[in-house]
Amino acid sequence: MDDRTTASDTPLFDTLTVIGPGLIGSSVLHRARRDGMLARRLIAVDNNPTFRQRVWDLGIADEVTENVAPAVAEADCVMLCVPVGVMGEVAATAIPAMRPGAILTDTGSTKVSVIDAIRPSLRPDISYVPAHPMAGTEFSGPDAGFATLFENRWCLLTPLPETSSDMAVSAVESLWQRCGARTKDMTPEHHDRVCAIVSHLPHLLAFTICGTADDLADQTRSEVLDFAASGFRDFTRIAASDPIMWRDIFLSNRDAILEMLARFTEDAQAMARAIRWADSDYIVDRIERGRQIRRSLIENHQA
Amino acid sequence: MDDRTTASDTPLFDTLTVIGPGLIGSSVLHRARRDGMLARRLIAVDNNPTFRQRVWDLGIADEVTENVAPAVAEADCVMLCVPVGVMGEVAATAIPAMRPGAILTDTGSTKVSVIDAIRPSLRPDISYVPAHPMAGTEFSGPDAGFATLFENRWCLLTPLPETSSDMAVSAVESLWQRCGARTKDMTPEHHDRVCAIVSHLPHLLAFTICGTADDLADQTRSEVLDFAASGFRDFTRIAASDPIMWRDIFLSNRDAILEMLARFTEDAQAMARAIRWADSDYIVDRIERGRQIRRSLIENHQA
Repeated sequence: MDDRTTASDTPLFDTLTVIGPGLIGSSVLHRARRDGMLARRLIAVDNNPTFRQRVWDLGIADEVTENVAPAVAEADCVMLCVPVGVMGEVAATAIPAMRPGAILTDTGSTKVSVIDAIRPSLRPDISYVPAHPMAGTEFSGPDAGFATLFENRWCLLTPLPETSSDMAVSAVESLWQRCGARTKDMTPEHHDRVCAIVSHLPHLLAFTICGTADDLADQTRSEVLDFAASGFRDFTRIAASDPIMWRDIFLSNRDAILEMLARFTEDAQAMARAIRWADSDYIVDRIERGRQIRRSLIENHQA
Repeated sequence: MDDRTTASDTPLFDTLTVIGPGLIGSSVLHRARRDGMLARRLIAVDNNPTFRQRVWDLGIADEVTENVAPAVAEADCVMLCVPVGVMGEVAATAIPAMRPGAILTDTGSTKVSVIDAIRPSLRPDISYVPAHPMAGTEFSGPDAGFATLFENRWCLLTPLPETSSDMAVSAVESLWQRCGARTKDMTPEHHDRVCAIVSHLPHLLAFTICGTADDLADQTRSEVLDFAASGFRDFTRIAASDPIMWRDIFLSNRDAILEMLARFTEDAQAMARAIRWADSDYIVDRIERGRQIRRSLIENHQA
């Protein structure tokens, strides 16, 4: 950041094109508009006319279009904010139209499969820097975005030795830091394992318990709603996230998620066995571990 | 409530004795002290000298003692707020010392096993009304209590045809309503099934995922703490609850919890299979159910 810090009162890019201004993309646009520090000119691309109208009405882009090619042709940075399942397809349309020397980045929640999907379309004169801003709410679409979504959150970068120039990595880091985020580099594989346990598995468990409750007999099901405050409600908040986005994440990070779910299931079965056989020490030990993690979070100011 | 409503400007009881002034018990005392509407005189009993001192310093009881027998002898209502694993033992000490016509109630999170534990000590001249205020935080002990803990929360009553007089049920309902809670009657068995899905299973899953994360290699484990905001953090909040209390709940409601966990595990395995075989429709359907439950909660003003 040293060189860029001195230049931090000028926009980072001339033209930033955001493809897919949903929760994440529109929050970047809000931030860019609010501070004027990301780009002099903002272009938003979406194939949904309602979303385009909302972005225009919100006043968070200078141009709004459905046509990818002209929208990326003048950009010095193109950010893909579409669901991970269509990243490859959108990149294949965007990359051939990009100008030489431009930067391509994405905000996908999984990295190995997104990189695999985008890689075939890459050009040697385009620098690609995969990124994942770890922020979100249970809401989606352009109206869900806001300028401070990334404040004090992490953005993980998984730069590729062969396609991510140092200058491009530094620019994408600056972009996210100017959005308020802290940045960290790691390999795509490690990223996917970490996200499997901190985000994907919790979501899978939350979706599942909501489904399990939904299958109960009618009377009990209605009481689940009445008495949700006792723990269940926290799961429903997690489970309220966008289905297509999460379907794509589960399918894109399949191996890491299945591995973490298998570990979790072993542990849940061990807990079930301890309950069945009244193994108090085991139960208390496992509960104590949960409390330790919570205490560490509080010490880390993450809770 | 009709008769009692007219008398709602006078205390419900002359003397209320709370045995075990932890989070729940001390919150009842705070409420009783604040409004003066539960009892004219408040007695707190605890075998932990530190807790007794804290209750005394907080000024939420007129008498604080470690001796159960004298503390219950003058009470017209005795409330057991101890962990469910010691309910039977404490009841066996308290009941013989209670005065004829007095009411016994408890606040245990499981009902079938607590009732089984208390039943052998019951006397025909004592009315026992099992109850479960569905409120709590991740904190425990007398310092965790506050007067509004039960505001707009449910208190479930599981009256027993043979030991709960109508007048006693009505008095315990009034007590909880004066604490700000809504009350509902159901059978002990039904209560335990409902709580298994809305509270006990979510806690079991939260404890388990924290343990699973704790078992990961050191680097990943530390990153789990860094990136916890992405869903995992909500689980750690649930998992921060008191270990002894939860051990007792799991052991006391064993059958219902194991049944709900078995259903959940089947559903999680079905989700794993759908991910492995890329069954998009199944995944989206299960996620959609979670969203429906969330929407129902919002319509119910529970979220």
